[in-house]
Parts: sequence; C-alpha cells; structure tokens
Amino acid sequence: MTFPVVGMVGGGQLARMTHEAGIPLGIRFKLLSDTPQDSAAQVVSDVVIGDYRDLDTLRDFARGCDVITFDHEHVPTEHLRALEADGIPVRPGPDALVHAQDKGVMRAKLDDLGVPCPRHRIVKDPADVVAFAAEGAPEGTEGDGFPVILKTVRGGYDGKGVWVVRSAADAAEPFRAGVPVLAEEMVDFARELAANVVRSPHGQAVAYPVVESRQVDGVCDTVIAPAPDLSDELAGQAQELALRVAQELGVVGHLAVELFETRDGRVLVNELAMRPHNSGHWSQDGAVTSQFANHVRAVLDLPLGDPRPRAKWTVMANVLGGDYPDMYTAYLHCMARDPQLKIHMYGKDVKPGRKVGHVNTYGDDLDEVLDRARHAAGYLRGTITE
Amino acid sequence: MTFPVVGMVGGGQLARMTHEAGIPLGIRFKLLSDTPQDSAAQVVSDVVIGDYRDLDTLRDFARGCDVITFDHEHVPTEHLRALEADGIPVRPGPDALVHAQDKGVMRAKLDDLGVPCPRHRIVKDPADVVAFAAEGAPEGTEGDGFPVILKTVRGGYDGKGVWVVRSAADAAEPFRAGVPVLAEEMVDFARELAANVVRSPHGQAVAYPVVESRQVDGVCDTVIAPAPDLSDELAGQAQELALRVAQELGVVGHLAVELFETRDGRVLVNELAMRPHNSGHWSQDGAVTSQFANHVRAVLDLPLGDPRPRAKWTVMANVLGGDYPDMYTAYLHCMARDPQLKIHMYGKDVKPGRKVGHVNTYGDDLDEVLDRARHAAGYLRGTITE
Repeated sequence: MTFPVVGMVGGGQLARMTHEAGIPLGIRFKLLSDTPQDSAAQVVSDVVIGDYRDLDTLRDFARGCDVITFDHEHVPTEHLRALEADGIPVRPGPDALVHAQDKGVMRAKLDDLGVPCPRHRIVKDPADVVAFAAEGAPEGTEGDGFPVILKTVRGGYDGKGVWVVRSAADAAEPFRAGVPVLAEEMVDFARELAANVVRSPHGQAVAYPVVESRQVDGVCDTVIAPAPDLSDELAGQAQELALRVAQELGVVGHLAVELFETRDGRVLVNELAMRPHNSGHWSQDGAVTSQFANHVRAVLDLPLGDPRPRAKWTVMANVLGGDYPDMYTAYLHCMARDPQLKIHMYGKDVKPGRKVGHVNTYGDDLDEVLDRARHAAGYLRGTITE
Repeated sequence: MTFPVVGMVGGGQLARMTHEAGIPLGIRFKLLSDTPQDSAAQVVSDVVIGDYRDLDTLRDFARGCDVITFDHEHVPTEHLRALEADGIPVRPGPDALVHAQDKGVMRAKLDDLGVPCPRHRIVKDPADVVAFAAEGAPEGTEGDGFPVILKTVRGGYDGKGVWVVRSAADAAEPFRAGVPVLAEEMVDFARELAANVVRSPHGQAVAYPVVESRQVDGVCDTVIAPAPDLSDELAGQAQELALRVAQELGVVGHLAVELFETRDGRVLVNELAMRPHNSGHWSQDGAVTSQFANHVRAVLDLPLGDPRPRAKWTVMANVLGGDYPDMYTAYLHCMARDPQLKIHMYGKDVKPGRKVGHVNTYGDDLDEVLDRARHAAGYLRGTITE
C-alpha cells in the first residue's frame, strides 16, 4: 500500500494526539523528538531523537517522509526553506508559518489584509512604549494610556514573553532579551474566542464552531464549544475571518485564530497558531472529526472530515499539575465519579502549573457539562478534594 | 507518576486499536509481536519481537509490565499459569481464557451453567458424526440429521477450523489435524447477534447494546448497533447471559458472546472471545467508551466507562482486501464522498479476502447509515467502482 509517512517535528502532547488520530487513518507517523521521554516519543514507534534547530538532523529525519508538519512553531524559517528546496513538502510552509512565529510579521500582514487587530506597534525602547501608550490615551484626558501589553515577537507562549506594563519603569524588562518587542493596546474584552479552521493544499477548508476560551493566569483553563450566547452573525464573522486568514497566508493544516470579543460586539485577532491547538482539544470527543485527524488529512491533501459538533455542548478543561506528583489515584476517582468523562493524559511528569492533560465532557446542559469538566480537572490537580 | 504498563501479547489490529485507546488514558503500552511489520508493531513505541509460544520470551516480555493481556487466544495455558506463578497479573486469566481457547471446555462449562447452546458433542470419528447427526433427525422421519457443524476445539477463527458437513464422507477432513472435534447442530437461526460486556477484577461490569452481526462467507461483514427490531426482553436476556458468563467464568476485560437468534425467539451461544472483538468495533465511534478503552480500564482494574451509544444507529463494515493492492486512491475517494465516514485502517498489506480495516458510520436513519458503510467498504475492496 502507498499509505504515506507523516513526519512531525516536536514530541509534545500535540504530536502525541496527532499520532493517536493518525492510527485509524492508516498513515505512518514519524517523530523528531528532543528526548525519548517526551510526551509523543512514549507512544510512537518511529522516533528520531534530535535537535530540530540542526539542519542536518532535520534533513536526516525528513528522508523517507512524504510530508513534514509540526508540533510547535520553533523550527527556524531558513531550515524549512532548505527542506523545501530538498523537495520535501513542509506543511504549513515557511511563508505561512512565519506569521505564527513572528508576531511583528503577523500584525503587519493582518493590517495589510484589513483584519481587525488590537492597536499595535513595534517599539524600540521604554520611551517608545510611553509614546505608544500616550497615543492610546482618550483624547482630552490626562491619562498616560497605560497599561499596555508588550510581547517579544518570537518565542512566547502561554503567557511567557508577554508583559502587562503599567509604567515606563515596567517597560525595561521585555527589552532585555534583545528580541524585537511589539506593543499592543490592552483590549477591554468581554471574553476570548477561538475560530479554528483546517485548510488543505488544494484549498478545501472547514471551520469548527467558534469556541469560548477562558484563561486563568494567562493559561487556558476551559474551552466551551460552541461559545455560549454568541450571535450567529459574530460567529459567522469569526469563521469567515479565520478562513480568509488561512487562505491569504497559505496555511495548510490546522489554524487557530485566538480572538478577543470586545464589549461592543467586535472581534479582534489576538494570536495565530498553525498546528493543532488547545482551543481545539474539545473536538476529540465533541466533533465528528477531531482537529488532529483533520490536521493529518490536510497536510496529506486528503479530503477533510466533517468538523460539526456531535453534542450540544462540549467542554474541555486543562489538567494542570498540582503539589502532589502522583495523579493516578485521583484519576481513578474521576473515572469512578463520572463514567462519561473523557480523560486525555500526556504522559508528562507532574510539576505545579504544568499542563499534563485535559478532560472533555459533553451533554445537553451546559452548567452540568462545565461542572463535570471543572470538577475532574480540579480533582486531578488537587484543588478539589471531594 | 505511577501510571501502569499494560503488556499486550499479539501484534494484530486489536492490539493496534488498544494502543490507540490507551494513549489518552496515559498508560504505557508494551507489545509482544511476531514481526516488526505487524499491524500494532507499526504504531507502538515499546515493542518486543518474539514468539508468544516460548515461555522465556513471555517472561522477558512480562518483566516491567503491571498486567498482561491479549490480542488473541493462542498463548498456551501452561505459560499463562507460569506467568501468574511469577506474580504477573494475567487478564483474562488462564482459568477464564481456556473457555475461549477450547470449544470443548467452553461447551461443557456453559452446559454446567445451564446457558443455552446449540446441541453439541465431542465426536471421535466420522461414524460418531453420523450418530450425532442421526440423534438430531426429527423423530419419525427418515432424515439422517445432516448437515451438522464440525469444529476443531482449538485454533479456529473466521470460518477456519469450521466445516459444514453433509455426509459421512464429508466428515473425514476435520479429523486430519489430530485435534479433538466438536460436533454441533446446524442452527436454523434468524440472525446472529453479539452481546459484548466488560468486567473488571473487582467485579464491576458493563454491557454494550446487543448488536446484529451479518456474516458473508463465514467472515463478519457488517455489525449494526443496536440490533434492529430486537425486543427489549430478548436484548435484556442476551446482556444478562453475557454478564453471567463473564462472572461465572471469571473473565476480566472484554467478553464477546456471539449468539444465534433462533426463529422461535431464543438466543443460543455460538462462540466466546475474551478480548476486544470485531463485533465491538462500532463502539469506537458509536459509544461513549469504546471496547478498547474499557478493555484497558478493566485489565487495570480502573472504573469502567459508559458503554451507551452516542448515536441512534452505528454500523461497522469490515474492509476486506480485493484484487488491487493499493487502497489509497479508493480511501481518498471515500473520504471525499462521505466527510462523516470513520475509517480505521490496520496498516496491513492488501490480500484478497484479508481484513485490512473497517469503517464506522452513524446517524438516525438506519438504511442510510448501512448504505454509507457498505458503499465505503465495497469501494475500498474494489467491488463497487462508482
């Protein structure tokens, strides 16, 4: 059989779950992982241990793969171009991926496309931050325009590389890494949404229902699919926006568009991710085709699967590590308490605050579905003990 | 974390799908496979290549496993006892498993329990078969009681090791292997059903909806969940029967009880399988918890998951190999035709008549759900070309 080989760079939980989704598809899955202990390396047969920052390692890995895709956005752009020059399809390709790697490039491109974003500007030093903030101060007031958000254009995730800056003195820290810094207005949002779409090389695209994402301490806590009380109009706008971004940027695979819903009923793009994304984990148990299966189908240019929900409500809650390193007893308890609970563990050592898994619940009553997910995640973390 | 290691003996598709189901559970999965090309060996990280008939190989494999379970029933009973004597939990254990290994032992035990079975007897030669057949001839007729079914008590599957015998001359062949032969009446059944249950060591058990299984040439073709037009009473009887067999035989893990539904509305036990089973594949996409996930939970003595269906109707159709060795183009076509189709490929080389995968479909309209599954399976095999 000519079933192809998908090579995935990065051994985290996204690769682990992509492998899981690839098994029924009959594809061969090959992994480039930093260590044999990484989440995906524990469960994949064909693993190369190596450093994705080394081009020779990438080239050796790519040999025998029909397509290369990614668990993270950190592979250097020039290496991706080298693989493409070698004739290996890289999906998403470097010209698309750079928009998920570099927030400065992303903002500039979205501006070109007229896609609504928070007010933003690349800033060169703390004085420039003060000027950027002042530009945002309401006219005729004496406000200084703070707080504003500063982000290093590369390398941040889950609240890392992001600062809420309330004064010029606060603004020194983000410049210390020597990476360009993007300033953004602090949006007074009503809530955060995510519009997830999948696009294939021949241009087929599917849109998942727009979800609500609730953050705690800068980390995604729960995702509700679909976003409650979202007007059809705004949901449609968000889906269209994500499909347009996927097309204009030439994305292949899963694209997560993280959005702010403003208090006056608009959506603004917060972040882009070009890979399966935490805001799409609900789809494993809540959609006809999961984001992981559709990502695999897209990078292989196979027809995409139906993204529609299977339940009225699906809730995903992230399981973070707590103080107690052994989750197995709590895990057993959660299974006993809720036989419908869908647990997804990543095989990672428990450390306080580390994402080590997630749970999905679904049903007709949102309050009940939310309670079940939150209870399980809290119990696994150890913040709920009964 | 103390997440345990499940060792599975046998590298077939059942092990492949059990590994898939174990990934979200966070357990470690270890495989003993005949070759690195076996279906499961392609997708599991921790694979030992070896012969399950060799006790030393089994012992080496079992070291570091928290429990041993099986993709097939062929491990010699004395080896299982040796592993248990070494202190390794074997689930299902040898005392249970022998009933799935030896049809003679199974029939004797079910007789003891008063579980309804086809009329049967161990026969010693063709003359004995003639006598057995005659005992079943309707009183006062001149019929000879043929046809009858002959089965070798060990080693048969998918119609192999099973003969429909119409005369004394026909009856020579089954005795050639030198294995004891079981004669059974040929039941004039209305249809075949399967009652699938899962039982854990501490005695928790769950019952899946009773399904209808349709065979073509002795091989399972389609499974419909739940069995259409089955009375609640007979469905309940079948589930109770399976739960009782699981308990009385001390089964741990998934138990498939293949049943004949007679034309006068009774159920008779045809076969037992103590592992995930083809008649339960629908549960991957059609039930809250799949048979594979529940098998893993059971062998680890974890609380079992909800076995209830997620859709009104789910249909599984086996994909058999056809004349054309490359299925990929047909596979792509099936995905394009039906974005809701759930394809499960086993990574096996296509050979005519070989099970190389299955498809699941679900929905509210049984005719439509059946058509979609049959079309996809037929198209993949090459018997439907449009």
